[in-house]
Amino acid sequence: MKNQPIGIFDSGVGGLTLAQSVRQILPGESIIYFGDTAHLPYGDKSAGAIQYYSRKITEFLLGHGAKVILVACNSASASAFDVLKEEYRDRTEIIDVIGPVVDYLCTRDYAKVGVIGTKRTIESGSYESRIKAKSPGTDVFSLATPLLVPMIEEGFVFDDISNAIIRTYLSRGSFADIQALVLACTHYPIRKNQISKIFDFGIEIIDSGKPVSAILKEYLETNILLNDSGKKDDRFFVSDYTPYFEKVARMFFDGEINLKKADIWK
Amino acid sequence: MKNQPIGIFDSGVGGLTLAQSVRQILPGESIIYFGDTAHLPYGDKSAGAIQYYSRKITEFLLGHGAKVILVACNSASASAFDVLKEEYRDRTEIIDVIGPVVDYLCTRDYAKVGVIGTKRTIESGSYESRIKAKSPGTDVFSLATPLLVPMIEEGFVFDDISNAIIRTYLSRGSFADIQALVLACTHYPIRKNQISKIFDFGIEIIDSGKPVSAILKEYLETNILLNDSGKKDDRFFVSDYTPYFEKVARMFFDGEINLKKADIWK
Repeated sequence: MKNQPIGIFDSGVGGLTLAQSVRQILPGESIIYFGDTAHLPYGDKSAGAIQYYSRKITEFLLGHGAKVILVACNSASASAFDVLKEEYRDRTEIIDVIGPVVDYLCTRDYAKVGVIGTKRTIESGSYESRIKAKSPGTDVFSLATPLLVPMIEEGFVFDDISNAIIRTYLSRGSFADIQALVLACTHYPIRKNQISKIFDFGIEIIDSGKPVSAILKEYLETNILLNDSGKKDDRFFVSDYTPYFEKVARMFFDGEINLKKADIWK
Repeated sequence: MKNQPIGIFDSGVGGLTLAQSVRQILPGESIIYFGDTAHLPYGDKSAGAIQYYSRKITEFLLGHGAKVILVACNSASASAFDVLKEEYRDRTEIIDVIGPVVDYLCTRDYAKVGVIGTKRTIESGSYESRIKAKSPGTDVFSLATPLLVPMIEEGFVFDDISNAIIRTYLSRGSFADIQALVLACTHYPIRKNQISKIFDFGIEIIDSGKPVSAILKEYLETNILLNDSGKKDDRFFVSDYTPYFEKVARMFFDGEINLKKADIWK
């Protein structure tokens, strides 16, 4: 079991930012990744649809031997994590991207934090309710910023348009006095510096990479599940394949990457 | 048969701009609409996936008595129309949004036209090759403008951001001397004026509404398929339902609209 891969899934290839982080912190582990490009983006879909997709993908990853499942997608973490956790509790450990970020955030004791993400993530109120539960004194301002994903995928980088879009979202008065901003979408980390600049680099920008990888590492160590074979083999699957997904995937992941199509929906 | 509804489908609710146009030109007809919100947007999906979805939706619409099928989605028209036309030639008439626009365009005898649409539509080269085939002297410049759909759905209207996005796309040198611009995406018509302004209202902006409705009307008249019952009943289905789709739907369609969920994928 311990030499089996870590299963990671996302609505598309954005979750590769998390895979990248896992690989940095756990370089000896194999990764099996599934991007549900047939249904991407999840941000606009209903909770019911996202739960159905997440269940099928979890089955696929377990079928390919995953020893643990990382829900890289914030929309899926917000809408499907509780359901998966309950349904699969006898079969596998499931780690989402929201819990670890909230846990980390609550060690920092901020008076006010901001959260930006997709419609689904923000409307679910997941970050807000979990932060409030653990740290009632922390004020939270959340905003859906759905234009950022297509903007990033379109390759608008550090130009007038992307600055205008980011600035328009983040110049809301309610963001003025935040001490930290949570990037609650897998795409956003690659704009971390540009976002940080809007706040004159004066606040902490938090993405899921480090907190989630740290929780994962702790879980593998505690349960003696670290790969000690010295061998690794990463595999990347998508439910729909286009050359464009391959191109965007390379934007999010530094290593060699070959997307294979696995249409689990037909 | 003649009192049956007109079947219209799209990847989402954007195709309602075409439904709106059909209703204006053929006010006595019933409409049955299917928006594949579970897979939206089609613009990034593979041709194979879009063909598979289009086939299933066509079956759904025929199953609900559609007397003719309108493929409102440009991505589906580019990737799946030929396949549908061939497969269903004994069962129903299928009308796409590209052919009628190209036919209209070729009556205008322009020296140079521009085409903007999703990645899938533009990469397919459908408009370009069909215009060239019918009007070899017409120069065509096509550009994928995928940020426009989320921008429109986000409600950025006539503000700095949407002007910057539209202007950035359309200020390419190759657009400088066009005499007409084809809006090859169902979302774009609601930004017609804003786009026209970029060209100082000096060129013709063409969307699929009028040409497609005209072809449809001609087909119904010729084949004695006009609804003469004096009764009509419009129905609108989506494969995934959220209140947000309902809100966006109202942006595209002037009448009363109630989206019903019909998940044909499970």
